[in-house]
Amino acid sequence: MSVPAAARQDGPLALICGAGSLPLAVADFVAARGRQVLLFPLQGIAKPEDFAQRPHIWIRMAQFGAAERAARAAGCSEMVWIGSLVRPSIWQLRFDWSSIKLISRIAAAFYGGDDHLLSSVARLFEEKGFRVRGAHEVAPEILVPQGALGAVQPTPQDQADIALGLDYLRATGRFDVGQAVVVARKHVLAVEAAEGTDLMLARVAEMRASGRVRTPSGTGVLVKAPKPTQDRRFDLPTIGPRTVEGIVRAGLAGIAVAAGETIVAEPMLLAQAADRGKVFVVGVADGKGP
Amino acid sequence: MSVPAAARQDGPLALICGAGSLPLAVADFVAARGRQVLLFPLQGIAKPEDFAQRPHIWIRMAQFGAAERAARAAGCSEMVWIGSLVRPSIWQLRFDWSSIKLISRIAAAFYGGDDHLLSSVARLFEEKGFRVRGAHEVAPEILVPQGALGAVQPTPQDQADIALGLDYLRATGRFDVGQAVVVARKHVLAVEAAEGTDLMLARVAEMRASGRVRTPSGTGVLVKAPKPTQDRRFDLPTIGPRTVEGIVRAGLAGIAVAAGETIVAEPMLLAQAADRGKVFVVGVADGKGP
Repeated sequence: MSVPAAARQDGPLALICGAGSLPLAVADFVAARGRQVLLFPLQGIAKPEDFAQRPHIWIRMAQFGAAERAARAAGCSEMVWIGSLVRPSIWQLRFDWSSIKLISRIAAAFYGGDDHLLSSVARLFEEKGFRVRGAHEVAPEILVPQGALGAVQPTPQDQADIALGLDYLRATGRFDVGQAVVVARKHVLAVEAAEGTDLMLARVAEMRASGRVRTPSGTGVLVKAPKPTQDRRFDLPTIGPRTVEGIVRAGLAGIAVAAGETIVAEPMLLAQAADRGKVFVVGVADGKGP
Repeated sequence: MSVPAAARQDGPLALICGAGSLPLAVADFVAARGRQVLLFPLQGIAKPEDFAQRPHIWIRMAQFGAAERAARAAGCSEMVWIGSLVRPSIWQLRFDWSSIKLISRIAAAFYGGDDHLLSSVARLFEEKGFRVRGAHEVAPEILVPQGALGAVQPTPQDQADIALGLDYLRATGRFDVGQAVVVARKHVLAVEAAEGTDLMLARVAEMRASGRVRTPSGTGVLVKAPKPTQDRRFDLPTIGPRTVEGIVRAGLAGIAVAAGETIVAEPMLLAQAADRGKVFVVGVADGKGP
């Protein structure tokens, strides 16, 4: 079958939009392939000004019935969730009737790891006949390729730190914990769990300021990789210009991520920020080095 | 051989004292067994007022030659390092001649994990003919026994969190990272690396305050266990009243540690603090539950 036929067969895509610039980038990539995209920004999470120039329908996290009806009315059978999603308080959500019937399952998802929350939501929509896909499946342009994104390359010492970090993440993947670790000269300085990458990097910066980190500034690597158990459709690790700013403040040498399994928001801005900060950002294959 | 004969054979014990109340507790336990103890507080680390009432000789971290001569002159062939040890900056140390010859090895230890630093120092003294032992070997009274130290007991949900935490620590032990993790309702909230247990608990308290932790206050367990690779003579996990205060502030249900492999500073004060905070502190056997 030809590509246009396949695109027609898929029909319009329902894009459920969280925060950040990534949802609109994905929308543009998908539209560039000739596929119609319907934007469903999440109320309280996506920013209204980002959607002012484009047709969109606001939906709420706990009102899956409304989202379902809107997507179906628009002829969408495929759905993508994209953008950062602050884990809401279950008590702040206002459940609609369609969702309240599922409240016990949603509550269970809230008390599992982060993976379970989004996987559970996806499963709900799949049971209603939607196909939930990963943003990188419909817009592979958002994935980090192999090699350096900027001009700086990792040294052999950095590569040893990268290998140790990937090894650590592989060993802990089954625990549904964070996806990132900071390694400096073979010493694990910080492990990400519920606090997220930005706060972990702030901690490394503080530890450097207080003298707790003994390796010199300009050493150490932030290593990110997807968890083996993770539902890769919507929880791939993501990096952006802010991640680069975070490692520069933490005095690290660079960032290493799994090539083809990591999403990059604003790759041009990220490469510029990396060059300005004299740090590297590399996509590495199979955990075997850049 | 009778016990007094063995004690005589060991001769006086050189106790190298870091910060905290533990060194003096160990000194008292050893003395109660009829063995002579010589106190060597570490300058800049141990508090002078703690040693005002007892004979002692101040030593410096980087002046192993002086420590060696003093211990030898006192007839000590066995040595114990005990008390918390802030990792000093290698540039702040003033090396004596005996130590400067070993500076490259010490520097290597500084850039390895925490374990390597103390193991390397021990090896230096062993090469000079001293026997370096763990504080718990000469004063087993300081180890956490199996069971609860206070009145509160873990619930079955807490026990599931304890099992998950021990499992995580076993999986990461070979990385020479921290020895502690916070698990709440099967969700790993925080992993300790270079920041130490107190700062990790402060982070959990902050995450609770900012709404990042969704499980209710009073859920979650701090799990501590020795690393499989760790030199257990002087780097066993340690808990004390301050650890209890930290978990109370973090809204956790309790603390679980490996029985017989964890040192407790001030067990009476710790049990009182636990009862006051309505939290449990348990020693668990073999990672199979309390």
